[in-house]
Amino acid sequence: MNVTIVAFDKFTDIDVFLPWDLLNRVKFRNKDWTVKIVGTKPVHRSVCGIELPMHGDIAECNTADIVFFSSGPGTRELIKDKNYLQQFNLDPERQIICSMCSGALILAALGHLDGLTATTYPTATEQLKSYGIDVVQEPLVIHGNIATAAGCLAAIKLVSWIIDTKLSREIREDVIASIQPVGQGLECIY
Amino acid sequence: MNVTIVAFDKFTDIDVFLPWDLLNRVKFRNKDWTVKIVGTKPVHRSVCGIELPMHGDIAECNTADIVFFSSGPGTRELIKDKNYLQQFNLDPERQIICSMCSGALILAALGHLDGLTATTYPTATEQLKSYGIDVVQEPLVIHGNIATAAGCLAAIKLVSWIIDTKLSREIREDVIASIQPVGQGLECIY
Repeated sequence: MNVTIVAFDKFTDIDVFLPWDLLNRVKFRNKDWTVKIVGTKPVHRSVCGIELPMHGDIAECNTADIVFFSSGPGTRELIKDKNYLQQFNLDPERQIICSMCSGALILAALGHLDGLTATTYPTATEQLKSYGIDVVQEPLVIHGNIATAAGCLAAIKLVSWIIDTKLSREIREDVIASIQPVGQGLECIY
Repeated sequence: MNVTIVAFDKFTDIDVFLPWDLLNRVKFRNKDWTVKIVGTKPVHRSVCGIELPMHGDIAECNTADIVFFSSGPGTRELIKDKNYLQQFNLDPERQIICSMCSGALILAALGHLDGLTATTYPTATEQLKSYGIDVVQEPLVIHGNIATAAGCLAAIKLVSWIIDTKLSREIREDVIASIQPVGQGLECIY
């Protein structure tokens, strides 16, 4: 089972790194689980200025089991870039396709939100509506294998749903318990 | 006002990147605020395999206003490395000195926890006790300018306390609201 987290220039730091850390914790419970951060260049720069080396190209999304679009100001350029969008050949019948915050714009640009409700960061709401999407004020919106989440900490809900769907409730509980504050639910995963 | 987040080889991803993202959000409310991730090499590798370029050397901690030690298996080597420890010349009279999870081991090795209570990740509890520290099961323990936090999401409490202490409650509220899930307290900061 493999996950690709899609990054790009001007990605929101926490919307890559929080799911990245959480999804890597699954490996403590399932050895057949890989996570890669993918992009279109060897290195993408975050909003806050981290120069992040990629683990692979976005082409890897087309064969991934879970495709996770991160967010950030960079999405506004990508949704206008036909060459970028054409490289994705995703299929919600066989893949989980999901997004954090303004990553929903890419899902919309790829046509995966047609006829669905979705959530996004408030600064992207009007642009998402321009695709004909019914934008709702929810942390996580799920339709089959397609999910949108918004507000950085909603990544925890989105990752929980991914693990529940692809693995088990037990693994999800272990992963989420492993990041709780001490004295407030923390359980070590290793 | 400048913050240094101390990283090293085998750092826990989220314990660098969650405070990094949160502390950078302060810039939307205070232009005189910088955040750097510092180490002893040009690049340090995280537990999950991110090759993270540093923004500077640990020597910058000695003149920072806030010194934030991250966590991870790498701390176990560093606390035995006299050359590493000798490069720090920190002063809790003029600096906030704080840690996430096993970063408390470095604070202890530097002598900053002498006579104090502290919190740490469960896997580091026995080692922290070996310094004579009274380890308590709390997400955040504060003594003057010294604070230890544990359990990844306790970073939110630790960063909140830093912002309250150095800036204001209003800025802290804005920063923390900006990462909440949509429909559950999210307020945009920009």
